[in-house]
Amino acid sequence: MKILLVGASGVLGTAIAAELGARHDIIRAGRTGDVRIDIRDPASIRATFEEVGTCDAVVSAAGKVKFAPLVEMTAEDYAIGIADKLMGQVNLVLIGKDFVSEGGSFTLTTGVLAHDPIRKGTSASMVNGAVDSFVKAASIELPRGQRINAVSPGVLLESMGGYAPFFRGHEPVPAARAALAFSKSVEGALTGQVFSVL
Amino acid sequence: MKILLVGASGVLGTAIAAELGARHDIIRAGRTGDVRIDIRDPASIRATFEEVGTCDAVVSAAGKVKFAPLVEMTAEDYAIGIADKLMGQVNLVLIGKDFVSEGGSFTLTTGVLAHDPIRKGTSASMVNGAVDSFVKAASIELPRGQRINAVSPGVLLESMGGYAPFFRGHEPVPAARAALAFSKSVEGALTGQVFSVL
Ligand SMILES: NC(=O)c1ccc[n+]([C@@H]2O[C@H](COP(=O)([O-])OP(=O)(O)OC[C@H]3O[C@@H](n4cnc5c(N)ncnc54)[C@H](OP(=O)(O)O)[C@@H]3O)[C@@H](O)[C@H]2O)c1
Ligand SMILES: NC(=O)c1ccc[n+]([C@@H]2O[C@H](COP(=O)([O-])OP(=O)(O)OC[C@H]3O[C@@H](n4cnc5c(N)ncnc54)[C@H](OP(=O)(O)O)[C@@H]3O)[C@@H](O)[C@H]2O)c1
Repeated sequence: MKILLVGASGVLGTAIAAELGARHDIIRAGRTGDVRIDIRDPASIRATFEEVGTCDAVVSAAGKVKFAPLVEMTAEDYAIGIADKLMGQVNLVLIGKDFVSEGGSFTLTTGVLAHDPIRKGTSASMVNGAVDSFVKAASIELPRGQRINAVSPGVLLESMGGYAPFFRGHEPVPAARAALAFSKSVEGALTGQVFSVL
Repeated sequence: MKILLVGASGVLGTAIAAELGARHDIIRAGRTGDVRIDIRDPASIRATFEEVGTCDAVVSAAGKVKFAPLVEMTAEDYAIGIADKLMGQVNLVLIGKDFVSEGGSFTLTTGVLAHDPIRKGTSASMVNGAVDSFVKAASIELPRGQRINAVSPGVLLESMGGYAPFFRGHEPVPAARAALAFSKSVEGALTGQVFSVL
């Protein structure tokens, strides 16, 4: 399969590239690197698909949100996550559906905060919940037998250096375990699922 | 209790006003009527709270989203629901927390489409999922013992005239049953919950 992997250089993206790269042709994309894409910008998404051409799978391991205490959060702070992790990933689907092959798939990234919140995480929770539900809904309407799932990992072991104080008591997930769920989504046949990796 | 009810004139709002109005002082708000508020506009939300003063509970039964087939939906179409049902309700909380009394509550409205999607409903699903998860996260950070819950009703019986073709097989919920969940949220002690009324 030819797989466009957005966020390939990240903690999660690196593990996904290792897992799927063993069997497939991975196009590694991000704001930096060889294949450029900024998911906040629909024109950039479209340009990348036009450059890359038809894909069998699109995997997103990108998506930024602002972390701050609820009492300090403004509408502008929520707009960061809405433009990036939420609409960035939704626009990958809206634009990408015309470039993904029949029976191809989309796999988006959410996270455990959708249902197991932490302090300062209201935007992450909100955006993850939005993407989880979008995936369930989009799965019944995608054209040409295309599939869509989300992977919702717990906090990644490799990120605990910086994240540990915010995720006390959360059991860290090795990125390689989370990557398996991306393989299940891309190489399996399920659609409309949120694969929780805890 | 003094309760600000946004969307009081709607199908759901009318039932909530009947249920809670039997025991409490309801301030009925909407874009039209005596107390004006447009939840899409943070300045309007702030002006309404300044006019109304301290409340013991804020209940939202407002929130618009665009319904259209996924293949016709654009980023602008999703922006309608993000500005109205999602950020409109989030901004009610961000601004309202300074006007809600100690131990007071917020109750937002989502809906069954978050997890039981229909065709043309990707924006509704996305926004409902976002609000469900926001409520869970905000509940652990609200100041002064304030509580927050969401009510997630199935399709309302009173709306079936127009909605039935889109909700075949869904069991309609009388608005008066959904209104009970708002009473549970406002008059009970739970927080961070999504009350599903199916
Ligand atoms: N780390 C965790 O513990 C954890 C747990 C659960 C869920 N998640 C989720 O997993 C996803 C990836 O997290 P991560 O920790 O792997 O992040 P990361 O290490 O910061 O990597 C982010 C990746 O996305 C790319 N990227 C960033 N912004 C982009 C944009 N606007 N358009 C296109 N590409 C962009 C980055 O490359 P460039 O800088 O070159 O663009 C990088 O490749 C996020 O959605 C995160 O919320 C992470
Ligand atoms: N009806 C259903 O079957 C159903 C099922 C599940 C969930 N829901 C949800 O329940 C909520 C209410 O639905 P409904 O059917 O009762 O709607 P509705 O009958 O159309 O009533 C909407 C109410 O909200 C007010 N409103 C609309 N836009 C507003 C804005 N921007 N700012 C402030 N107020 C605004 C309206 O009054 P003005 O026009 O005066 O502003 C009206 O009072 C929605 O979030 C809907 O998604 C509905």
